[in-house]
Amino acid sequence: MINEKMLSLGQKRSAIRELFEQGKILKEKYGKDNVFDFSIGNPSIPCPAKINDIIRNLLNGSSIELHGYTSAQGDKKVRDAIASYLNKTYDVNTDGDLIYLTSGAAAGLSITLKAITSGSGDDEVIVFAPFFPEYKVFIDNANAKTIAVKPDYKTFYPDLNDFKNKITKNTSAIIINSPNNPTGVYYKKEVLESICKVLEEKQYEFEHPIYIISDEPYRELLYTYTKYDFITNFYKNSIVTYSFSKSLSLPGERIGYILVNPNCESANEVYASVCGAGRSLGYVCANSLFQYMIPECLGLTSDISIYLNNSYTLYEELSKIGYEVVKPDGAFYLFVKALIDDDNEFSKKALDYNLLIVPSESFGISGYVRVASCVTEKQVRDSIPKFKELYKYYM
Amino acid sequence: MINEKMLSLGQKRSAIRELFEQGKILKEKYGKDNVFDFSIGNPSIPCPAKINDIIRNLLNGSSIELHGYTSAQGDKKVRDAIASYLNKTYDVNTDGDLIYLTSGAAAGLSITLKAITSGSGDDEVIVFAPFFPEYKVFIDNANAKTIAVKPDYKTFYPDLNDFKNKITKNTSAIIINSPNNPTGVYYKKEVLESICKVLEEKQYEFEHPIYIISDEPYRELLYTYTKYDFITNFYKNSIVTYSFSKSLSLPGERIGYILVNPNCESANEVYASVCGAGRSLGYVCANSLFQYMIPECLGLTSDISIYLNNSYTLYEELSKIGYEVVKPDGAFYLFVKALIDDDNEFSKKALDYNLLIVPSESFGISGYVRVASCVTEKQVRDSIPKFKELYKYYM
Repeated sequence: MINEKMLSLGQKRSAIRELFEQGKILKEKYGKDNVFDFSIGNPSIPCPAKINDIIRNLLNGSSIELHGYTSAQGDKKVRDAIASYLNKTYDVNTDGDLIYLTSGAAAGLSITLKAITSGSGDDEVIVFAPFFPEYKVFIDNANAKTIAVKPDYKTFYPDLNDFKNKITKNTSAIIINSPNNPTGVYYKKEVLESICKVLEEKQYEFEHPIYIISDEPYRELLYTYTKYDFITNFYKNSIVTYSFSKSLSLPGERIGYILVNPNCESANEVYASVCGAGRSLGYVCANSLFQYMIPECLGLTSDISIYLNNSYTLYEELSKIGYEVVKPDGAFYLFVKALIDDDNEFSKKALDYNLLIVPSESFGISGYVRVASCVTEKQVRDSIPKFKELYKYYM
Repeated sequence: MINEKMLSLGQKRSAIRELFEQGKILKEKYGKDNVFDFSIGNPSIPCPAKINDIIRNLLNGSSIELHGYTSAQGDKKVRDAIASYLNKTYDVNTDGDLIYLTSGAAAGLSITLKAITSGSGDDEVIVFAPFFPEYKVFIDNANAKTIAVKPDYKTFYPDLNDFKNKITKNTSAIIINSPNNPTGVYYKKEVLESICKVLEEKQYEFEHPIYIISDEPYRELLYTYTKYDFITNFYKNSIVTYSFSKSLSLPGERIGYILVNPNCESANEVYASVCGAGRSLGYVCANSLFQYMIPECLGLTSDISIYLNNSYTLYEELSKIGYEVVKPDGAFYLFVKALIDDDNEFSKKALDYNLLIVPSESFGISGYVRVASCVTEKQVRDSIPKFKELYKYYM
C-alpha cells in the first residue's frame, strides 16, 4: 500500500535536480572550470562571520536550555525580537504571538497552505506563472488545486485580466513571490496595489477571505528598489513566509518564520490553525540553536553585492549578444527567452556548450530558461563566449 | 476557509502541555523547589560535552559547505556512517541509500506514515495502547484511521488476541515503541517474535505488506536488558524511525533518521516514497550542522544513569507506599495505577500535593498516570512524602 503519489514524487527528479546530476557528469569529463552550472539557487557566498561567532557564544551557555525543546511556535523571546524588527522595518505592528518559527520557507508554505485550506479537495490556490515548482507540491499536500495565472510577457507581472477570471468561490489563497524566482522581477507598490484591489473586490463578491501568502526568501536581495513594499501594509488577509536561507547563506540549516498579519480577519484563529498544521505535519519546533541565533542577526545579510554584479553582468552581456533577457530587480536569477520555442530542447542544446540552464517548463510556462546568478564572478565571465556560441548556433 | 481540524489541533492543548502550564502557576505560588513536575519528557541532563566540541570544529570549516543544502535525503557520507554503525551494532546489512535523515522522530513518523498509506481514507494503522498521543495526529495527517489494541494489564505487552482481531484487509502498518512511552516497558525478543508471527500470518492472508514502524527514540535508554533487539532481524517489512533527542539530550535540534529495512518488499520503492512524502510535507533536508555532527557521535549517549536511578528509586519508593507501579525496563517514565478509576480526577487531586502527573487517558487507556523520571534526583527524593500524603488521602 505504498502511496503512489509519494512514490512518484520521490522517483521523479525535478528538472533542476536532473540538470544538476548531468552537470556532475560533465564536470568529471571536462573539468570543473569548464562547465558553467547556472542550474541551482544555492547561495555561493559564505554566511557573515558573525553567524559562526554567535553560535560559538551560544555553545558556551547552558546546553540543556540551548538544545532543549522550545515551545512549538518557537521561543517567545526570539519571536518577540522578530516582531520588533518587523515593526521597526516594515511598520507591521505585531507581537511575537503571531509569529511561528519554521524549518525554512518550504515548511512555512506547507504549513500555511494546510492551515488556510479546508482539506475538502475543493480549495483552489492561485500562483502566478512562472512560479517555483514546489508550490504545486505543497498545494497538493493540502488537498487543494493549483491554478496558474499567466504573466504579462512584457513586464512579467501577473496578467490582471487572467487573474480576475481565475478567481472563483473556491479560491482560498494566492501565492506571491517577490523578488521572483525564476524571473528576478519585483512587484513594486503599484503592482501590489492592483493585485490587492482585485482581491478586495473578489472577497466582497464571494464573502470570504482570500489570503495572500507572500513567500519572501529573496526579500533582502533587492537591487533596483531601496525599500521593500511589505504586504501587511497593502492587504489585511495576508501571511508572510520567510527564510534566512538566502539572505544569510544558511539554506541547509532550515530556519525561517511565518507571520500572520495582525489585521487579518480572525488573526488568532489563523495563527492557531498554523500551529495545528505544524503539529500535524510533524514539526515539533524549529531547531533551537538556529532559533537562538536569530535575535542577533536580524537585518544582517551576506555580501549580496556579488549576486547583483553577476546579475548585472549577465543581463548586459547576454542582451549585447542578442538574447532577450527579463531585467532583474532582485533575487539571483535571470529569465532568458529561449532561441527556439521548445525550452527543453534549448536547454539540452546548451549542454553541448557546457551551459547548464533550466527550462521554463518547470516553472509553468514555455519558451524561456532560468539562469542562476549565485555563482562565481569567474564563471559568469568565462561563460559569456559559450552563450555567444550557443546564440550563433541558432542564428 | 480555515482548516477546522488544524484549528482544533492548534487550539486544543495536549493534557501534558496543560499540566505544564498549571505547573508554572504552582511554581510561582509555592516556589520552584516545592512543586514536583513529573509531566514532561524533556531530557534533564546536558548533552555530552563532546557534542559542543564537534560543533565548534565544524564551524572552523567552510561555511558554504557546512550551512549549504544537503541532498534531500541527507548527506551521503552521514547516511553511510549511520548505515555502518547500524550494521556493526544491530546486524542490519544496509547502506546509506536506505537511510533518510529527518528533523527528529516526529518528522520521521509523519513522513513514514504518509509514505506507506494510500491516502484514500481506508488505511488503518494499529497502535498498542497506552501510546504516545501524537501518533494519532500523524496517522490523521496521512488520512488513515488509528486502531488501538488494548494491553495485557499484567505485562503491558499488547494483548495478542485483541491484536489479531483488529487486523483487517485495510491494515497498512502497526507502530511499536520500545522501550515504551508511557509505560517504560521493553518488548523483549519473545514479545517481538509473537507480534511478528501474527503479522506474517495476516500478510499471507491479506496478500499485501503490513509494515512495522519501530519508533525508537528511547533505544539507548534500556536498563534491564543488555542488547536491544533490532526489528530488522525479526521482520522484513519494517521501518525504523530514530531520534537523537533523548539519547544525546538534543530535543530542540530536531535530528534523527528513517531506516527502511533492506529486506523490505520493494525496499527501494518504499524509500522513494519516503523521499516523496518528505518533499510533500515541506522537509527540504534535515538541518545540515546537526547532520554533520552525527558521524562523530554514533553510539554516544548523555549520562543516562540518572534516569535509571530515578526510575529505580520511584519504582521502589512508590511500591513501598502501596502504589501499583509497572516495572520499567527503560525510557524515562513510570506508569502508575491511579488510586481511583478516574485518572483525570486523580491527576487533578495530585495537584493539591504539588505533584504534576499525566492522566493516562491521553495515552488511550484509563485508570493510570505517567510519572516522568527525567527530573533531578532531589525532586525524586523530595516528592516521596507528597506521594505518601496523596496515598493516605485515598486510603
